[in-house]
Amino acid sequence: MKLVAAPNALKGSLSALEAAAAIATGAKRAHDSLELVELGIADGGDGTAEVVHRARGGNWREIAALDPLGRARTARYCWLDDDTAVIDVATASGLALLEQAECDVLAATSYGTGQLLRAALDAGARRILLGAGGSATVDGGTGILEALGARLLDADGRLLPRGGGGLARLARIDLTELTPSARHVPIDVACDVDSPLLGEHGAARLFGPQKGASSREVAQLEAGLLHLAQVVACDFGRDITAVAWGGAAGGIAAGLHGVLGARLLPGVDLVLDTVAFEAQLAGANLCITAEGLIDRQSVRNKGPFGVARRAAASGVPCVALAGGIASDVSDGDFPAFAAMFSICSRPMPLEQAMREADTLLAAAAERVVRLFSARR
Amino acid sequence: MKLVAAPNALKGSLSALEAAAAIATGAKRAHDSLELVELGIADGGDGTAEVVHRARGGNWREIAALDPLGRARTARYCWLDDDTAVIDVATASGLALLEQAECDVLAATSYGTGQLLRAALDAGARRILLGAGGSATVDGGTGILEALGARLLDADGRLLPRGGGGLARLARIDLTELTPSARHVPIDVACDVDSPLLGEHGAARLFGPQKGASSREVAQLEAGLLHLAQVVACDFGRDITAVAWGGAAGGIAAGLHGVLGARLLPGVDLVLDTVAFEAQLAGANLCITAEGLIDRQSVRNKGPFGVARRAAASGVPCVALAGGIASDVSDGDFPAFAAMFSICSRPMPLEQAMREADTLLAAAAERVVRLFSARR
Repeated sequence: MKLVAAPNALKGSLSALEAAAAIATGAKRAHDSLELVELGIADGGDGTAEVVHRARGGNWREIAALDPLGRARTARYCWLDDDTAVIDVATASGLALLEQAECDVLAATSYGTGQLLRAALDAGARRILLGAGGSATVDGGTGILEALGARLLDADGRLLPRGGGGLARLARIDLTELTPSARHVPIDVACDVDSPLLGEHGAARLFGPQKGASSREVAQLEAGLLHLAQVVACDFGRDITAVAWGGAAGGIAAGLHGVLGARLLPGVDLVLDTVAFEAQLAGANLCITAEGLIDRQSVRNKGPFGVARRAAASGVPCVALAGGIASDVSDGDFPAFAAMFSICSRPMPLEQAMREADTLLAAAAERVVRLFSARR
Repeated sequence: MKLVAAPNALKGSLSALEAAAAIATGAKRAHDSLELVELGIADGGDGTAEVVHRARGGNWREIAALDPLGRARTARYCWLDDDTAVIDVATASGLALLEQAECDVLAATSYGTGQLLRAALDAGARRILLGAGGSATVDGGTGILEALGARLLDADGRLLPRGGGGLARLARIDLTELTPSARHVPIDVACDVDSPLLGEHGAARLFGPQKGASSREVAQLEAGLLHLAQVVACDFGRDITAVAWGGAAGGIAAGLHGVLGARLLPGVDLVLDTVAFEAQLAGANLCITAEGLIDRQSVRNKGPFGVARRAAASGVPCVALAGGIASDVSDGDFPAFAAMFSICSRPMPLEQAMREADTLLAAAAERVVRLFSARR
């Protein structure tokens, strides 16, 4: 029997690779002679580079890069043997880098992520894969553009301050000093959220509050992004208000698409392509994926659903294990899954489920493999 | 595909028949053309007669019988078409009949259960099947014996008061007026606990406190049961201190064995024989059983383990669904089960799991059947 363990991270409990190891541990207990593929999955969220590195190999490269508040720190990206550089926005520009008290979403900049892109381009990268999840910023990617050599100018020709707070004063984006490779090296953004740049479900209004924005700041950021879209439409002829996934990473997705022509793609599909998921599935009898919570909202973009869709297309049954399955979700709602099980083996509080996720996930995988193997 | 749903009751949430219905509901959602056997299971605990009645048919018969404190009430037993009478001790002598404040374990008597036996014998029963679980009494079955015509006398030839509290004054058991059929109609006691009559794991010391006994009352009951065993050994030549399962139902099992030669049997096996379990299993692809809690202590006697053992012997994989699986239990501990799953689909408190047991059990059964059917 061949099993592919392809979980997402269980946010707050286990990384994708830790989750894959737990599934493998449990599955081996259930089946003596299991052929096992241990594969972490990501949907463009935090940890995407690590997942790709585990599947594809390659080297980590470290550079000095600014954090969202402009403080120097070390950040890394992964260099694959086909000269693709895999960069997580969260590495240099992540919300997890900040204490809650120091969050300043108006000033937060994606500049450090731009430094990583710049380093990769300077090193000769032939493609950039950018994991969009976990950003602290709502700057429409202007920080990245600046790090790549763009100049964001106001009506008087002065450089704007960094961060999304000042975008309403943007007059034009000067690409004269843009590093040349940024024009032709393809940038693929692995988007973890299916949000437009603007509006109720957009980068400012839906995600701003999670990044510490007050109602007033949300309005200021929304106005700034709208203005950015107008400048981009004018200077580059692309409508980033309409582009799908444009709201990912505080509008980094939209900004890079509008100015540099970056492709915005569902993160899970981009990652599964990069790790050659179908090749891993070949000859498998069962695929087990996992994530923290399965709810109705999570269906469209989350890693496990991409895994299940592609497993189903390959004829491999896919089981989802989750910390929790929301009460409004039934198995019939998600026919791509053969079944969904919670890792909770008894009534317990959320804190315990998260604390014991490793053990519980292994036990759940053991049960699934046992049952699956029991068919006569 | 043929599925046998054979759950125990989930104590405090669902009767065995309600649990079987929930499993059936979920399983049908997962599989269009399911052949389904819906069978409640019991291990001699409260509800045994109902489970047998559902599987075998037969008639309920009602009589007036005394409750554990001697108050008249109505009680019923089930008459099967082979003239077996199925009687639950809990019906007339159950702990559930009493308010907590009125528990009086020294006075509590199994007399009402004896009235049911007497009625069945008088009606021509050819066999008595007695479900031992849920009793409020620790009287060694002396109440039953009295109702059948035995006289329990002290050294002065006076009748003892009912209940376990006075057994230390027992001098002899006079069977002169015993109803004659009690001597030859076989009595099979379906024992839900694997406890001896006496000692640390016995009827008084282990179960007395659950029935409201103080430490002092436990000691008094233990002394009474020991004395009863000595009188029985003397008058009837049977050593009821050593007999397996003798501690079931406050020593009713030991008393009926010692005085009337009743057979004491593991309740689940007796019930499974009575409902012709192997015949129901014929041609089944999967069996799903259930109970409230699976822990290491529950392995030997609980219904689901008997179901699993016999399903395994018939080559049918058996899955256990439980409200909770104790943390010290892993699937490997119970190889008779193909797998065990909790019905908890997310972190939740015990009260919620119990309140929503019907829905959760159905959803869990749906998942199991889905996964089981997914094997290609």
